[in-house]
Amino acid sequence: MNRVIEKDVAIVGAGPVGLFTVFEMGLLGYNCVVIDSLPQIGGQCSELYPEKPIYDIPAYPMILAGDLSDKLEEQIKPFNPEYVLGDEVTTLEGEAGNFTLTAGETTIKAKVIVVAAGAGVFTPRKPPISNLADFEGSAVFYAVKKKDQFKDKTVVIAGGGDSAVDWAVALGDICKHIHVVHRRDDFRAAEATVQKMKDLEKAGKLTLHTPYQLKELNGENNILQEVVLSQRGGEDKTLKADNLLCFFGLVPSLGPLAEWGLGIAKKKIIVEPSTMQTTVPGILGSGDITEYPGKLDLILTGFAESAIAAKTAQSIIEPEKRFKLIYTTSSGVPAE
Amino acid sequence: MNRVIEKDVAIVGAGPVGLFTVFEMGLLGYNCVVIDSLPQIGGQCSELYPEKPIYDIPAYPMILAGDLSDKLEEQIKPFNPEYVLGDEVTTLEGEAGNFTLTAGETTIKAKVIVVAAGAGVFTPRKPPISNLADFEGSAVFYAVKKKDQFKDKTVVIAGGGDSAVDWAVALGDICKHIHVVHRRDDFRAAEATVQKMKDLEKAGKLTLHTPYQLKELNGENNILQEVVLSQRGGEDKTLKADNLLCFFGLVPSLGPLAEWGLGIAKKKIIVEPSTMQTTVPGILGSGDITEYPGKLDLILTGFAESAIAAKTAQSIIEPEKRFKLIYTTSSGVPAE
Repeated sequence: MNRVIEKDVAIVGAGPVGLFTVFEMGLLGYNCVVIDSLPQIGGQCSELYPEKPIYDIPAYPMILAGDLSDKLEEQIKPFNPEYVLGDEVTTLEGEAGNFTLTAGETTIKAKVIVVAAGAGVFTPRKPPISNLADFEGSAVFYAVKKKDQFKDKTVVIAGGGDSAVDWAVALGDICKHIHVVHRRDDFRAAEATVQKMKDLEKAGKLTLHTPYQLKELNGENNILQEVVLSQRGGEDKTLKADNLLCFFGLVPSLGPLAEWGLGIAKKKIIVEPSTMQTTVPGILGSGDITEYPGKLDLILTGFAESAIAAKTAQSIIEPEKRFKLIYTTSSGVPAE
Repeated sequence: MNRVIEKDVAIVGAGPVGLFTVFEMGLLGYNCVVIDSLPQIGGQCSELYPEKPIYDIPAYPMILAGDLSDKLEEQIKPFNPEYVLGDEVTTLEGEAGNFTLTAGETTIKAKVIVVAAGAGVFTPRKPPISNLADFEGSAVFYAVKKKDQFKDKTVVIAGGGDSAVDWAVALGDICKHIHVVHRRDDFRAAEATVQKMKDLEKAGKLTLHTPYQLKELNGENNILQEVVLSQRGGEDKTLKADNLLCFFGLVPSLGPLAEWGLGIAKKKIIVEPSTMQTTVPGILGSGDITEYPGKLDLILTGFAESAIAAKTAQSIIEPEKRFKLIYTTSSGVPAE
């Protein structure tokens, strides 16, 4: 069931800066849809450190990251933003005044796009293996969607954190055999779960390979046959395996945004700071995702950039209109 | 008694942006003195509209202007700023790394100066009369410091707002005669006071001249003799007078800052936005007083500019040090 949303402005990213962009657009009379791949608003603040205090939000001697999101959500409520959460924005078509975006099953039409994607999309860190792509999606995975997929298979799990250890234990009953590969002897995971993993080892269902690293993948036609491990100063080891699961953590990346034809520098989107315009007319940027001379990756900087982006949005949506700064002290907040 | 204050950074202006600059400097380890001609911190927020709500401070759905100052004062307390209040900064000497400022009886030494003077100094709006300066300070005034000065004098009061009407009434008993000149028939002042003024007119102590405007001043050796009034489509009127009091409101101006040799455009101080550096090395700007392409006169913009100014201050105070963004979420606030 394809949902279609049509708004003046589509904001990619529901972190603090994306949320505040709704406010600045709202002051100028524009309604917004906010899209985020995370299932809730707030971006990193809500996802990674909701309980952490922040001290450099102006006029907040201290605010918890989660409360910052809550306050911003309250502040923009008068402008009735629509949220599309849990789906990554993928395709972009059209041009300034008439863009079409896709996010999961949702189609979004907007006149202006503001990319406020923060550090970008968090994607799995991958091992440096040249033919990795040959097996991705068929034999190599970075997350487990369905456990049954690995039933009676010999699976290599790489990594030493919670995800690696948790899945080694969770798949222990299902798989034919599990090999756990980690570059250190110590695992950075919950003590009790590490113990369960070692119990599986004693039971002969799991083999630990430490300190080893992934070296090569062998196979053909997208079918994995062997995983070769290396050891510093030691000999390689070859494991027969059907699947490889890598749990090396998440790294931020531009994700699908990298395919939109935007000018990129230092893995960020280049904008002209006086307008926050990217190299593609009608696509603006705000917050940490943007790059320009002197750029500081601070939330408070993103807030100010959103006000600039709103001014630029007006020049695109209503080019004939003269921009006039709105002082809420005199006017209050004009609701939608 | 000359007080001498020596700090890393001297901030001119104790409005929200000046206050937040203390915070950003403090994060980098620099202590600050904040100077303002107003007797309290908070700038316009505290002076002109402390009870007015502001809606566009990020993460504050609403905050009273006075509370904004209070919160900022609390936020910067860990960095122990010193305040010099009630004295306008006048002279500037020295250069980057070694500036000396004067404010009233206080001498301030600092390595870096940040001008965060908002709309500048509020100065009286003056009538467009060519020889006005000949009488300023001797016969023409924009405020009443001592009522007795006008005892038994014939005084022309120009203006139609509260100040004009209030002083017409307050000086009514003291002066020989008062002429009130206003370009409209209606006065924009408290009803009751306007009525008192009209009572003075009936009693023969005061004459109203509406709709009239100031046209010329006649006199010699700084002594005023006549004030000539004009009327659209009518004849001029000449009043014998000893003094002229003009109450045309206050307009912001750069005041003594205009003499510091800084690049000026649109009555504002030109800065390079990637550094907030003015045309004089070591003197930075932040907030509404600054001008650059795309500049928005918003408090939240000034907050972001203060972070940039702090980075630049470090490049001046500790040029050998590599700038590193401080994330308070990880580090907290390092007190002085």
